Amino acid sequence: MTRLEQQVQFLTEIDKMKNIFRQNYLADGSRKENDAEHSWHIVLAAVLLKEHAEAEIDLLKVMTMALIHDLVEIDAGDTYAYDDKAAETKREREVKAAERIFGMLPEDQGAYFRELWEEFEAYESDDAKYAHLLDNFQPLLLNSASGGKSWTEHGVRKSQIYKRNAKIEETSASVWQNMKELVDKHIKLGHVMDE
Amino acid sequence: MTRLEQQVQFLTEIDKMKNIFRQNYLADGSRKENDAEHSWHIVLAAVLLKEHAEAEIDLLKVMTMALIHDLVEIDAGDTYAYDDKAAETKREREVKAAERIFGMLPEDQGAYFRELWEEFEAYESDDAKYAHLLDNFQPLLLNSASGGKSWTEHGVRKSQIYKRNAKIEETSASVWQNMKELVDKHIKLGHVMDE
Repeated sequence: MTRLEQQVQFLTEIDKMKNIFRQNYLADGSRKENDAEHSWHIVLAAVLLKEHAEAEIDLLKVMTMALIHDLVEIDAGDTYAYDDKAAETKREREVKAAERIFGMLPEDQGAYFRELWEEFEAYESDDAKYAHLLDNFQPLLLNSASGGKSWTEHGVRKSQIYKRNAKIEETSASVWQNMKELVDKHIKLGHVMDE
Repeated sequence: MTRLEQQVQFLTEIDKMKNIFRQNYLADGSRKENDAEHSWHIVLAAVLLKEHAEAEIDLLKVMTMALIHDLVEIDAGDTYAYDDKAAETKREREVKAAERIFGMLPEDQGAYFRELWEEFEAYESDDAKYAHLLDNFQPLLLNSASGGKSWTEHGVRKSQIYKRNAKIEETSASVWQNMKELVDKHIKLGHVMDE
């Protein structure tokens, strides 16, 4: 197979992202969001919100990281942020998926995507922290716009949101301020439990 | 409004891209594709296919261009590639949309997106040509994977596809070769008219 044939096969395979649904709804609450839509949205947010990051960001790298960060879900499925049981097997399922999916690409490109995905998962570098900020902030905006629909459905508690977002403040003080205000608003509205 | 508030309002507004449906189907033929999904897919293709471009490409710029190239459709709707009547009013509808939608952003960011969109529309620079290649190649791959579903529905002719893709060969000889082979395959299958 030529490199182009491998790339075309990969591009066709990842079309499956459009059928992998997340727990959060679209802003209008009409249906749940899929992984392709979510990924597009956070790559665009990466461009717009870069000025709020405390650290120097490699935008091209973060955009690519955000584009591919959920590809493993083609095989491993979406693991809901607040599902502790599914979280136990998440890493194992996702590594297997990464091997198969990134393995479809020419070796150099597959290795680059795998490296970016591992950096994202490690959640340690400034770029990975910024990508996680986008990954967490975007569904929060959609949850807020849709009247807290998925928070209510899952009985989400403030402490869960704070735990999941523990590194946001060091990544961007202004985004964290905005997130806290949104959570407070939805506590008052009864969509998030104040505990 | 602070810059972050403007950016958040914009990010919420563009969620509407997930409800704007195109004429082509997903690879599995199950339903039509929306603009957010399409945009994600071509931004990822931008990363993978850069090596096939004849010219030097500014990848960060093309990725951003591809991310935002269809945002005007939030107001102007999707204009089908082979609908000559709708094409007459396309520019006017889209310019009005660009003013409203990019106008929601902080001035510098809105001006940057508007500039990128105009460059894409002009279809003259090497970066714009590469973005158009992605914009045309991706639905062709999906049409092919889905058994030529949208070509059959619209009675598309080979000459229409060739006219629309007149600049692909100069942008990437190898991608154009691949496209021609796909079209020939679907002529043999009776999905594209050989005229």
